[in-house]
Amino acid sequence: METVCVLGAGSTKYGKLNDSISDIAVQSSINAIENACIKPNEIEAGYISNVFGIADKQVHLGPVIMSNLGIPDKPSLSIESACGSGSVSLREAFANVAAGFYNAVLVTGVEKVTQTGTEWTTTYFSYCSDFFYEGQAGASFPGLFASMARAYLNEYDATEEDFAAVAVKNHNNGLLNPKAHLRKKITIEDVMESPIVASPLKLYDCCPFSDGASSVILCNEKFAKSHTKDYVKIIGSGRGGSPAALQGRDHMTTIPSTKLAAQAAYKMAGISPTDIDFAEVHDCFTIAEIVDSEDLGFFDKGKAADAVRNQQTELRGSIPINPSGGLKSKGHPIGATGVGQAVEVFDQLTGNAGERTIKNAKIGLTHNFGATGASCAVHIFQNV
Amino acid sequence: METVCVLGAGSTKYGKLNDSISDIAVQSSINAIENACIKPNEIEAGYISNVFGIADKQVHLGPVIMSNLGIPDKPSLSIESACGSGSVSLREAFANVAAGFYNAVLVTGVEKVTQTGTEWTTTYFSYCSDFFYEGQAGASFPGLFASMARAYLNEYDATEEDFAAVAVKNHNNGLLNPKAHLRKKITIEDVMESPIVASPLKLYDCCPFSDGASSVILCNEKFAKSHTKDYVKIIGSGRGGSPAALQGRDHMTTIPSTKLAAQAAYKMAGISPTDIDFAEVHDCFTIAEIVDSEDLGFFDKGKAADAVRNQQTELRGSIPINPSGGLKSKGHPIGATGVGQAVEVFDQLTGNAGERTIKNAKIGLTHNFGATGASCAVHIFQNV
Repeated sequence: METVCVLGAGSTKYGKLNDSISDIAVQSSINAIENACIKPNEIEAGYISNVFGIADKQVHLGPVIMSNLGIPDKPSLSIESACGSGSVSLREAFANVAAGFYNAVLVTGVEKVTQTGTEWTTTYFSYCSDFFYEGQAGASFPGLFASMARAYLNEYDATEEDFAAVAVKNHNNGLLNPKAHLRKKITIEDVMESPIVASPLKLYDCCPFSDGASSVILCNEKFAKSHTKDYVKIIGSGRGGSPAALQGRDHMTTIPSTKLAAQAAYKMAGISPTDIDFAEVHDCFTIAEIVDSEDLGFFDKGKAADAVRNQQTELRGSIPINPSGGLKSKGHPIGATGVGQAVEVFDQLTGNAGERTIKNAKIGLTHNFGATGASCAVHIFQNV
Repeated sequence: METVCVLGAGSTKYGKLNDSISDIAVQSSINAIENACIKPNEIEAGYISNVFGIADKQVHLGPVIMSNLGIPDKPSLSIESACGSGSVSLREAFANVAAGFYNAVLVTGVEKVTQTGTEWTTTYFSYCSDFFYEGQAGASFPGLFASMARAYLNEYDATEEDFAAVAVKNHNNGLLNPKAHLRKKITIEDVMESPIVASPLKLYDCCPFSDGASSVILCNEKFAKSHTKDYVKIIGSGRGGSPAALQGRDHMTTIPSTKLAAQAAYKMAGISPTDIDFAEVHDCFTIAEIVDSEDLGFFDKGKAADAVRNQQTELRGSIPINPSGGLKSKGHPIGATGVGQAVEVFDQLTGNAGERTIKNAKIGLTHNFGATGASCAVHIFQNV
């Protein structure tokens, strides 16, 4: 197995973008290529992640992106795993480079949906649930995560204000991220007084619909060393699955796929949760970050709300979570999100995260799932 | 690298199906699992290929399929590469088993679109073109392939009747395939007299829109040998790309991605085109089969029409092409097509192709592309 490295990273701003889906994908790809100090024709394959290309009338994005990069002969594909598409694409690219099939590949995640309006987006996103049991019964994602939140409040020592504190923290981090979608300082009161979306979740407990693209260049270490450029190693990669419908699970306050993916990634890396210096986790709703940080082993079950209350997950806390602002503030262009997490970790570990840099960080983790966690991938990165 | 084997294969009928997209995907998956004589929990990952899950309101198909198979904890993902999705999914599964990440995986391709009607399908399929240059200018796939056909007629010694002969042959083969969509004997005259879709292509030069699902079980050879079951080895796998828009290519009568994918697959297998006993190729339009069979090296450039005229590609010819009936007669459920080709090769090489069995066949090839060949994968299989 080859050691797999991240040699460069790039991203568009997340938010409501005017350019086409192809254009923003190409922009972030070029950013990553330039950041890696390579030429496009050194790329041997393109791993694209996207869910709703139809929203901007472009499916089969790979060849369009590769053609616009001037490397139409290189193979490409698109990977979809709902909101976890980006990290699953990263995983496939990782597997192919690790196996020696390619020396260097482009991983680009992209989504462009805001032009379609909220009704379209909410309806189509619900097709990512187990539609037979969930979507067609009216259970869209805010409702499903609200069920998890209600269960958590019933089972553990947590309050709606604790959920709100997650949003406040992530907005504080996002303020320091020039590419974040929602750059706005908010208070616990702002969250508590925002309109109820699906009780107990309020508007400010929910991430936005975003457009955006993020890219990384993955390569083997020989390739990385031949370029005079800081790079980061991927030391762990894991995947897992959960019953597609929430109703099929034993518990509402834990996500099995996260645990499986994390176990596999920690095992590959030969480390434990206490070795992680910071993490980008899937906070599509504030309750998700609470559950994720327990399932990833950062806190005991039922204790994540305490940790948030005690500021342990803040930028200067013991285990900073979502320094980028997370899905909540940085935004959630669903096909791009998992790749965007890797961009943040790369920027952090190479000292390019500006004001939100976590001092002395050596090991970062990304956690990204699809739907209510039916699919999940976890990656662990280490600087060299 | 592990030797990768096909241990089992299964398929629904192709055509207009009434069951849901999830149901048909699960049906073909169960067929393959039973055919491989394994238990579902021996599968370690699911590689799903699909393009328009939204047509039946189910994206994020992987976890739904795995959950319905009783193995929700196993990771899965969906791969899209337009009409080439199935073979690209096969390639990713191949790479992961070859690299040792998994011992055995399920590859299932599925599409369910006929319920949406021709207008929806034609419009959405056009999003698989380079939409900026092609789709939005009104160039949908019949028109694009008609341009290739017209160029071929201008450049080489071929007639519209030669194109028609491809359709006649594939319908003859499809008559012998109980799972084919269009099981109807046709004549050259039938094709020539059918309505013009995009001159010189007529209705019977075009494959149908189909629903359907196909599945194979891939595993390493140790796993295969531990099961008392006929298996087939994958000895070559190659991928390639072309400029996404037809206008970006140097020639209209050849597809660069086919040549690149074939070269890579032949090189990996250590064989040449003359070693291939039969092939399943991407005949979305009759002109495509002509071009494919030249790009794959079976005939010199401009000579495939001769070969069809001389019956060389018929079931009892020197190099049978599309014994299953091909996309033209078997049908083209786009996400399933590439996997369905592998099912046919597996059935042929294990002596389970019934009346259409090609005698003494030892090596079969599959060729499947997306759009006008912007993406392509070629696989070569050998019996043991």
